[in-house]
Amino acid sequence: MAKNGPVMDESRQVAFDSGAAEARRLFAALSEKTGDPPGITRIAYGDGERIAFELAAEAAQAWGAAIDHDPAGNQFITLPGSDRERCMLIGSHMDTVAHGGNFDGAAGVVLGLAVQAALVAEDRKPPFDLRVVCLRAEESCWFPHSYIGSKTALGRLDPTVLDDVRRSDSGRSLAEHMREEGFDPAAVSEGRCLIDAARVVAYLEPHIEQGPVLVSEDIPVGLVGAIRGSFRYRQARCLGQYAHSGATPSGMRHDAVVAAADLIVAVQALWAELESAGHDLAITFGQVGTDPAQHSFSKVAGEVGFCLDVRSQSEDTLGLVAGRIDTLAAEIGSRHGVRFDLGPISGSDPAPMSKAMLDMMERVAGRIGLATRTMTSGAGHDAATFAHAGIPSGMVFIRNDNGSHNPEEHMDMADFDRALALFLGLMDEPAEAWAAIASAEGT
Amino acid sequence: MAKNGPVMDESRQVAFDSGAAEARRLFAALSEKTGDPPGITRIAYGDGERIAFELAAEAAQAWGAAIDHDPAGNQFITLPGSDRERCMLIGSHMDTVAHGGNFDGAAGVVLGLAVQAALVAEDRKPPFDLRVVCLRAEESCWFPHSYIGSKTALGRLDPTVLDDVRRSDSGRSLAEHMREEGFDPAAVSEGRCLIDAARVVAYLEPHIEQGPVLVSEDIPVGLVGAIRGSFRYRQARCLGQYAHSGATPSGMRHDAVVAAADLIVAVQALWAELESAGHDLAITFGQVGTDPAQHSFSKVAGEVGFCLDVRSQSEDTLGLVAGRIDTLAAEIGSRHGVRFDLGPISGSDPAPMSKAMLDMMERVAGRIGLATRTMTSGAGHDAATFAHAGIPSGMVFIRNDNGSHNPEEHMDMADFDRALALFLGLMDEPAEAWAAIASAEGT
Repeated sequence: MAKNGPVMDESRQVAFDSGAAEARRLFAALSEKTGDPPGITRIAYGDGERIAFELAAEAAQAWGAAIDHDPAGNQFITLPGSDRERCMLIGSHMDTVAHGGNFDGAAGVVLGLAVQAALVAEDRKPPFDLRVVCLRAEESCWFPHSYIGSKTALGRLDPTVLDDVRRSDSGRSLAEHMREEGFDPAAVSEGRCLIDAARVVAYLEPHIEQGPVLVSEDIPVGLVGAIRGSFRYRQARCLGQYAHSGATPSGMRHDAVVAAADLIVAVQALWAELESAGHDLAITFGQVGTDPAQHSFSKVAGEVGFCLDVRSQSEDTLGLVAGRIDTLAAEIGSRHGVRFDLGPISGSDPAPMSKAMLDMMERVAGRIGLATRTMTSGAGHDAATFAHAGIPSGMVFIRNDNGSHNPEEHMDMADFDRALALFLGLMDEPAEAWAAIASAEGT
Repeated sequence: MAKNGPVMDESRQVAFDSGAAEARRLFAALSEKTGDPPGITRIAYGDGERIAFELAAEAAQAWGAAIDHDPAGNQFITLPGSDRERCMLIGSHMDTVAHGGNFDGAAGVVLGLAVQAALVAEDRKPPFDLRVVCLRAEESCWFPHSYIGSKTALGRLDPTVLDDVRRSDSGRSLAEHMREEGFDPAAVSEGRCLIDAARVVAYLEPHIEQGPVLVSEDIPVGLVGAIRGSFRYRQARCLGQYAHSGATPSGMRHDAVVAAADLIVAVQALWAELESAGHDLAITFGQVGTDPAQHSFSKVAGEVGFCLDVRSQSEDTLGLVAGRIDTLAAEIGSRHGVRFDLGPISGSDPAPMSKAMLDMMERVAGRIGLATRTMTSGAGHDAATFAHAGIPSGMVFIRNDNGSHNPEEHMDMADFDRALALFLGLMDEPAEAWAAIASAEGT
């Protein structure tokens, strides 16, 4: 392996090569069977996701792993450990957005299987049962509800979601799609699942990075300190008054476009101010628009709709920003004679990853000579659900170019291999070190 | 008549009352026959416009006025004057937007007919032939080309417009609609018309104000010094790069929304700067929007489309603003790592009204005790075409609440009466004074 590390111990090369070869074979099969030019489509509870689950299960049958499914269809691939009373989980989701890439989600499952293949190749047992978890329905483009797979895997899905949330392409409910794939929404609504949180030593989720940080800093692997929480105003509006563009002087306007622009610029300045004061924060106005039914190139706009997405790993920062935005909206609204209606708020809580897990990963990376950095995950991931369930959780980001959710997503296999080396190093940690992570979480 | 003037000369009361009564009768008939709740619809070269033209012609037949139509269907209603070699024109358009008001356009024609009715009632001749001009197709919502009625009335329509420009509701060409209404597009394309510009002493267009200035200043009548010209970018875009909102740090974004907001705020500041330096100017971003096919609440936006409308009575100011906007777009684009593509530019030239005509109107208003103010027309009007053809032109705005192009448009008849009194006062001006206006224009 080249720069950015790691230095492989020669005695492990055969095992490592088995894992790396298995991963290449799996990625190729996934690409071939779920390709949908341009890119890859694996619809949640649809053909692509089912095919991906089958490919993962078939691969693991080669080494005799046990395959189980919970009532929601999440799949568990178990390699027995030295201690069979407890388990460690490696997993991620296997669905993709429409015409996405091959790695977002699947890379986590494939890495878990590569670890199993490597351990089997050297006839070595992990300290505890190693379960690779294939999770359902993570991409909220299909079912607009977050973390369906991990919530059902932990028996934590709000049962009303089963009938209320409908798949964007079919219009049919989550329950209907579960049944159609052969699963059991009634059992899901009772919270039945296959994970006993008390017996899980740790949940680890490898995932490609969805932003440009690792590429720009030339670091192959990121270790996630926290998954950001968020609040969102998805239906915010600035309400002014339509008026003739030529006949209405500046002082008599109630211009929704100018007021909304002022708010955007002011919130951008707020972000800069808080960031330089040390806050973790990301603020985005992803959708903005005048009303096509009423606007005109020659009319002062009376209404602008917008979405506002605010993310931070700190609840306090989220609260601070929400308050400052309220104040800015009131000030700017009054200055321009318009009114901001931010509409309903939604969001998710920040999820800190296990500090003890992070420490172990840093220690192992140091030992094997792998360059890493700690970072915050701005995107949501199933690991947040595991962390909220009290399971010590960790995430590993793999360097990836061109973002995700698009066909140009690009992870170098050399970087995947670096993450594989890190995970094999983690498997070398003694059972006591793993057990210490679980007990640190309890404090 | 109450405050804001004028004080009517008692000897003219009977004549005045005849004109005012005729106007009320005509507005009522227009509202009844072209009502289309909510509001009024008179489609250009359609039913509503035809009905309005017929109502105007029928009214004038009561006093034996001659009715003529040019090849484009513009209608001329002539009351003979003392000097029959030359004429004065009072007119406006009679179409409306869909569900607009009763007064935008029609008020100018009705005022001209009220002047004729008043003169007939006192058996008095105007100094020159007084022709009331009913113009076609001014509202560009129907045929997206400006001033079709006045351009055809003066033989100045670009002939390609006849076949190229299609009506928004029918999709059929202007020529087809002209033929359907019984007119002669072939003759229009040859420039045949009924107006000999050299024999026109003046064109006067009364029109409701489309903005809030007269209402807010409590002045019933505005005298227009100039009709603003404009330039427009109707298909401008800000081009950045789509990115994950959570995973892309501020310094790595190419955020089209933030850059567009910065441009809007900067251009607003430019407007304030130039206005306080004495420039006549109005700047509007009437349409703004991210791309619904690509945007998402959780994505940094890679593209924003917008329209920019800039108006001034000064060509120099328009040129200055265009240059400054280019510079701002380049600076802001480079600061945010985005590119502004302003797209095709369109617009119209400013049209100064006749200074001598304005002086005469101010003199008459002073004589009869009518409160007026001079103002710039931010909206385009057919008077611009007459001015560009070298005809001394003047516009009179009548106070109107709630803007125009909507059913809430509201002109008090007391204000219409004030404008009628002004026009009757103008008819009292001697032929020499009118002739002086024409010769002043020639210099």
